[in-house]
Amino acid sequence: MSELRIGIAGLGVVGAETAKQIITAQTMLCKRAGADLKIVAVSARDKEKDRGFSLQNIIFYTDPLKLLEHDDIDLIVELIGGEQGIALSLVEGALNAGKHVVTANKAMIAHHGFSLAALAEVNNVSLQFEAAVAGGIPAIKILREGLAGNAIQTVVGILNGTCNYILSEMTSSKSAFQDVLKEAQSKGFAEADPSFDIDGIDAAHKLAILSAIAFGQKIPFSSLAITGIRQVSDVDISYAGELGYCLKLLGIAHRDKAAEVSMALIPADEQLASVNGSLNAVSYSGTPVQSCVCIGPGAGAGPTSSAVLADIIDVASGLANFAYGIPVEFLAEQKIEHHKSSQQSYYLRLSVTDKPGVLSEISAILKDHDLSVASMIQNGQSEDGPVFLVFTTHKCAKAEIEAAVQIMQKSEHVLDTPMVIPIFDTCSFG
Amino acid sequence: MSELRIGIAGLGVVGAETAKQIITAQTMLCKRAGADLKIVAVSARDKEKDRGFSLQNIIFYTDPLKLLEHDDIDLIVELIGGEQGIALSLVEGALNAGKHVVTANKAMIAHHGFSLAALAEVNNVSLQFEAAVAGGIPAIKILREGLAGNAIQTVVGILNGTCNYILSEMTSSKSAFQDVLKEAQSKGFAEADPSFDIDGIDAAHKLAILSAIAFGQKIPFSSLAITGIRQVSDVDISYAGELGYCLKLLGIAHRDKAAEVSMALIPADEQLASVNGSLNAVSYSGTPVQSCVCIGPGAGAGPTSSAVLADIIDVASGLANFAYGIPVEFLAEQKIEHHKSSQQSYYLRLSVTDKPGVLSEISAILKDHDLSVASMIQNGQSEDGPVFLVFTTHKCAKAEIEAAVQIMQKSEHVLDTPMVIPIFDTCSFG
Repeated sequence: MSELRIGIAGLGVVGAETAKQIITAQTMLCKRAGADLKIVAVSARDKEKDRGFSLQNIIFYTDPLKLLEHDDIDLIVELIGGEQGIALSLVEGALNAGKHVVTANKAMIAHHGFSLAALAEVNNVSLQFEAAVAGGIPAIKILREGLAGNAIQTVVGILNGTCNYILSEMTSSKSAFQDVLKEAQSKGFAEADPSFDIDGIDAAHKLAILSAIAFGQKIPFSSLAITGIRQVSDVDISYAGELGYCLKLLGIAHRDKAAEVSMALIPADEQLASVNGSLNAVSYSGTPVQSCVCIGPGAGAGPTSSAVLADIIDVASGLANFAYGIPVEFLAEQKIEHHKSSQQSYYLRLSVTDKPGVLSEISAILKDHDLSVASMIQNGQSEDGPVFLVFTTHKCAKAEIEAAVQIMQKSEHVLDTPMVIPIFDTCSFG
Repeated sequence: MSELRIGIAGLGVVGAETAKQIITAQTMLCKRAGADLKIVAVSARDKEKDRGFSLQNIIFYTDPLKLLEHDDIDLIVELIGGEQGIALSLVEGALNAGKHVVTANKAMIAHHGFSLAALAEVNNVSLQFEAAVAGGIPAIKILREGLAGNAIQTVVGILNGTCNYILSEMTSSKSAFQDVLKEAQSKGFAEADPSFDIDGIDAAHKLAILSAIAFGQKIPFSSLAITGIRQVSDVDISYAGELGYCLKLLGIAHRDKAAEVSMALIPADEQLASVNGSLNAVSYSGTPVQSCVCIGPGAGAGPTSSAVLADIIDVASGLANFAYGIPVEFLAEQKIEHHKSSQQSYYLRLSVTDKPGVLSEISAILKDHDLSVASMIQNGQSEDGPVFLVFTTHKCAKAEIEAAVQIMQKSEHVLDTPMVIPIFDTCSFG
């Protein structure tokens, strides 16, 4: 049996679990890999920390770049993280040295994936990053190989477990955003600085990677429109429920349109609406498959190491595909068809003064912008505070609703920034 | 660019769609395959039938075995179907002639998969059958490669679209089995002879294939316990709903236990409970991934040809794995641990005469068999007809509930065969 000699950079929860699995499930994994998987060396900050497995017979470094000096390492597993810095240096160095690379680093791949994949091709080695997207869900494998026969039209995903946890908790416990965020932080579901998650950056990294594979295009990360969940109010979640919808942070990519990460209302009986807590989901639609939805744990030591191990086995058994399914030179430049002005329904919530004539004023603005109202709710009643006016629109251009909202904001009766959320009446089917 | 020369046997809806995709999506598919995909010859009954693509430059046979005589065919796509007969002869002949085989034939693979896979290995060619299981869902790819790093513990699936359609319709329209079956037949969702589907055989074929891959064992088809949905009554679906459950036909395989196809009650808020109509779903749980659920169209020209095309691309690009993920010689013999008597909750419905003392008699039988009641419903009331007694039990051994039911059937107050359905409180997680 041949041997695949591995160096692991980073022994956080994922790195430690990956190493532990390779050691404890050796027989099964080697059988599937068709090769002897051998950890030659690792790097981490602290050698003495108990990680649940023995470092005996494994060389330990504090400097990950030392792994590059090993001619006896065939594959570097990069689990340090970060868009550039040491992680990028290590991966570039490894590929240039003719070593395969498996990484979970979504920020690095979203920003540098195309050049790294090209570097891998030049050096005739593999670059794999299943663990960078949607944790335990084989999201890349499904898209790149399982659906390889398809012209993919749409990728929709719940790609950030922290946001999904917060929105699910706000929905089930009717709590405010800040309270749930604090609770999530105390339970370890959100970072001390949660910006990357709650501002949608992390989901956007994953969406950029999936879009490139789905559409065979070099999607620049900078082309994504990204909003997070910082502005979400329990009031909107409650109205969404009343209207038969569920509020989610979605990554949404249609072929030949700019991809976006945005809060969205989806029908409560949609498959993705029942994806709660820290679960992730991806939904692909295309021809001829119609659609396929996959749901699983989006993060954590076990799920993420499952994805890392799958990549290692693919490399070992010679089944590792091109990073984006085809050689980088065959990827098209990003294509955005601006003339297809996309029509969309919207949810619009206004805080207004409880005075006669307000509804008439708002209705007139909607009419002036050709915005047709599908439903309306006004059930906030207070003695002297604001009341809420909630509308859902029929399909309209984004520019129209934005223009209408700009004018509404100038009204003395509109007390707060209006909340506008797109409505997706179907996620799964093109 | 190298060339993969293809012969397609069978031009039914799936064969015709596959050929059409190869012809119309040529550029995209060849890029992903890294090879020129060329249909050399096809076989079908009727040459003149309009299939939506031109047979020009494609050799046509009515006898599929003629494809074996072509030295210029590298890959046979077998879409004839049937456990043995011409399909099996063709596949054996192709493998022996050093041709790769892609097939959607679940009956053949469930019964002859291990010997065919061994034959492929001896002849150094690939045998792939993604389309045999769950239509458009890459169920095999996910399990065999995407989750290759896992010790899989459980496979649970909604594997037959016809049954799922019938049960979903019975649930939503509160109709009787025979009425919905007739409607399904008229809409083309069920065959004129629906036995293979509604008796659970088709689902069992798929479950046998998935179990072998999941557990790395040679699961003989004959080892599966199979019941279908023929006995289902709208009464049970209605009680299930009242109890917070949903009734599904599931394929269920736990490592080291005999796999079974059976109706089951699952909690209405489980992911699989919302898989309705002709959709299929597979749910895998294992270590370290925890669990992963995938949902998609289980049949039809588009979804099934998507799976066939993925296999063709894998073969063309040299990424086709061993049929069962590892060489057949490494598959273990089936292992069933009988001493682990599995405990399970059950739903039990009795038709009884509306007389005093009946409940006491039934309760006594339950007590005698150590069956502890979790909930009970008695709300059927009729002047002189039977009433229904519905129980759910706490976890108990299957033998105990079977023994109790045997005794109940002998009571003069029990009017019909009692209905016993297992309850799964979780499908997705171990």
